[in-house]
Amino acid sequence: MLNKCFANLKSNGALCHNMTNYVTVNECANITIAIGASPIMADEIKEVEDVQTICNGLNINIGTLNERVIESMLVAGKTANKCSHPVLLDPVGFSASKYRTSSSLKLIDNIKFSVIKGNISEIKSLATGSKSSFGVDACDEDKVKDTNIKEVVEFAKKLSKSTGAVIVITGEIDLIAGDKSAIIVRNGDPMMSRITGSGCMLSSLITAFISANNDNIFEAAATAVICMGIAGERAALSVKNSNLGSSSFRTHLIDEISKLKEDDIDDRGKYERF
Amino acid sequence: MLNKCFANLKSNGALCHNMTNYVTVNECANITIAIGASPIMADEIKEVEDVQTICNGLNINIGTLNERVIESMLVAGKTANKCSHPVLLDPVGFSASKYRTSSSLKLIDNIKFSVIKGNISEIKSLATGSKSSFGVDACDEDKVKDTNIKEVVEFAKKLSKSTGAVIVITGEIDLIAGDKSAIIVRNGDPMMSRITGSGCMLSSLITAFISANNDNIFEAAATAVICMGIAGERAALSVKNSNLGSSSFRTHLIDEISKLKEDDIDDRGKYERF
Amino acid sequence: MLNKCFANLKSNGALCHNMTNYVTVNECANITIAIGASPIMADEIKEVEDVQTICNGLNINIGTLNERVIESMLVAGKTANKCSHPVLLDPVGFSASKYRTSSSLKLIDNIKFSVIKGNISEIKSLATGSKSSFGVDACDEDKVKDTNIKEVVEFAKKLSKSTGAVIVITGEIDLIAGDKSAIIVRNGDPMMSRITGSGCMLSSLITAFISANNDNIFEAAATAVICMGIAGERAALSVKNSNLGSSSFRTHLIDEISKLKEDDIDDRGKYERF
Repeated sequence: MLNKCFANLKSNGALCHNMTNYVTVNECANITIAIGASPIMADEIKEVEDVQTICNGLNINIGTLNERVIESMLVAGKTANKCSHPVLLDPVGFSASKYRTSSSLKLIDNIKFSVIKGNISEIKSLATGSKSSFGVDACDEDKVKDTNIKEVVEFAKKLSKSTGAVIVITGEIDLIAGDKSAIIVRNGDPMMSRITGSGCMLSSLITAFISANNDNIFEAAATAVICMGIAGERAALSVKNSNLGSSSFRTHLIDEISKLKEDDIDDRGKYERF
Repeated sequence: MLNKCFANLKSNGALCHNMTNYVTVNECANITIAIGASPIMADEIKEVEDVQTICNGLNINIGTLNERVIESMLVAGKTANKCSHPVLLDPVGFSASKYRTSSSLKLIDNIKFSVIKGNISEIKSLATGSKSSFGVDACDEDKVKDTNIKEVVEFAKKLSKSTGAVIVITGEIDLIAGDKSAIIVRNGDPMMSRITGSGCMLSSLITAFISANNDNIFEAAATAVICMGIAGERAALSVKNSNLGSSSFRTHLIDEISKLKEDDIDDRGKYERF
Repeated sequence: MLNKCFANLKSNGALCHNMTNYVTVNECANITIAIGASPIMADEIKEVEDVQTICNGLNINIGTLNERVIESMLVAGKTANKCSHPVLLDPVGFSASKYRTSSSLKLIDNIKFSVIKGNISEIKSLATGSKSSFGVDACDEDKVKDTNIKEVVEFAKKLSKSTGAVIVITGEIDLIAGDKSAIIVRNGDPMMSRITGSGCMLSSLITAFISANNDNIFEAAATAVICMGIAGERAALSVKNSNLGSSSFRTHLIDEISKLKEDDIDDRGKYERF
């Protein structure tokens, strides 16, 4: 199933409308191309309906949100819903400001999301209304660990049921949850947190996979997470072997995405179904 | 003549005002410096007249256009015209939305462009009003090939005559056309389409060359296209030799621009005059 | 003292609010992480008070300023002042337009800055009201050299006294001045001027150091300048040894920041106190 999601993307491509932040937008575009899809960035309210209509999916990332762009996101999201295109929400720093919280909730109220993706702190805050997010990193006490994995899976399945979206929770262990099934992924490397944009790139990668696999959002999202983790492991290895640093890791990470083969998912993926 | 354009840029430099998109703006700045010019990015309407006045040329790229910036582009473009500074238009995704189409036409109506640059689909749509652009890539059926090169050259010369701008059409074969003469360039590598920003970087590179060669826009634009193609070939080779991927290609591409010598144009350039 | 500033940042981290330009914002985020701090970018006026409140410091860089963001900067700066968080100003291209000049002066009038950082041309214009800045580079006749170093130190100390900010002047020789003491730094490499963002990255790096050393702004700023210079030297060496170009230098520069050790400051730093 995961392989098929990969093959679908590679053979059919996908045109992905990314409404993301200006910090990591370049990496988001490049990772989209690296995996075999095409990115288009557009946030002017006068064109987002036209643009979304010709695309296959939409990525909404609030990393550097502002009043102008939030309005455009609402229009683009509603258009995607009307066209039955999948839409992902990445509520970056959900609790970092009251404005991020209320804007995210406004998006959720007005758009049906296919995937909601964040770290455990963002997703928990979003689910419970609590304000535990400190900047854009997950709080230490909230990490997904082997000791709490069952509770987190149950929590994520419930959130998936109530939102209608596949929930993706990233961290040392990644979790993808539908309302009835879940996959946890143990790929990845700590170096992924030493650069900006690992999370944003993953959101663009998931968007590419779900855009090419609109009939199987859950498996498509899991495939994206596994691909990102494998690429992260390989990039970290080559950086360590060559005594390079964090910026080279960024380059190698996208390189490895561009070099992924379908077989890598079975050969290198470390995942379990719940 | 091409060598002279290169030498002029290297010896005199140029201060280039880039009004471009937020996806690839960093590469645009870096490639400008790599070739020996200086970039300045400014899009606030209250300062674009001042900024353009101290510059030698202007690059207008509508990749992530919005209402605020289009107004600033109009002011900057008119200032450039008043100062007799060369101005380039890159109508990215011309037909992806009615808004892009109308904004591009508004710019063309109000600013005298020295160069209009796009892929065949963007340029054809711009010329004919048809809407064949799918996102930001050229449609397959519209590629410039050996079998249709003469027709495309004629088309481009006519468009040059009617717009008063040198027309640059990019693709596997690149074409630079004035109203009476044309150059086709066979440099480059397919990897250039595996990253975001190859087209935007070329626009900034052309802007650097025409800013330093205001009396010879046609030859300056051709020199930029050849330089980009040679750098692309060399970057692709080093990436393949080292088994790297698409993000390393981006890095090597700018590296190769920074290492270009005047002799490379004669030694490595593959171009014909029509 | 410098070592202690480094150790404080490494052991305590810092959450740094960066309000910077869209050209080099990615590098600013990555260098912040590379040195061990966390960046958050936010410029919507409705959230900057909340965001700044949870941060440890603020970086204001006017590289691509606009009306909307200047208002947000004023709110963020005043919040930082209220919270006693350090604030840095990088008045990029201070004299490139009347708007940059007036906006910078408005920021200075309304915010108490801990550090004001620029090249000699920007800082001199800011101090004297003269308009010598040509784009974003220092004018040749204004470079800090051994022959004029004493005068520049005196000038910077006076400016520090009148503004209440530590003054950082960058160039071939870098200068950090409080009202009574100064440090000059001879680290660095000419390749740092062959990429966009060296200056912006330094501003983010200083912000990281002062955010973690709020009780010792002067020494913290000097430590950042020395770190940047050492990383620049090492990156230039590896790029030259491998026959790479300017874009690889950018990657290696951030790599070297991520690999810096406390001992490097004593072992490799070339600085004198005045």
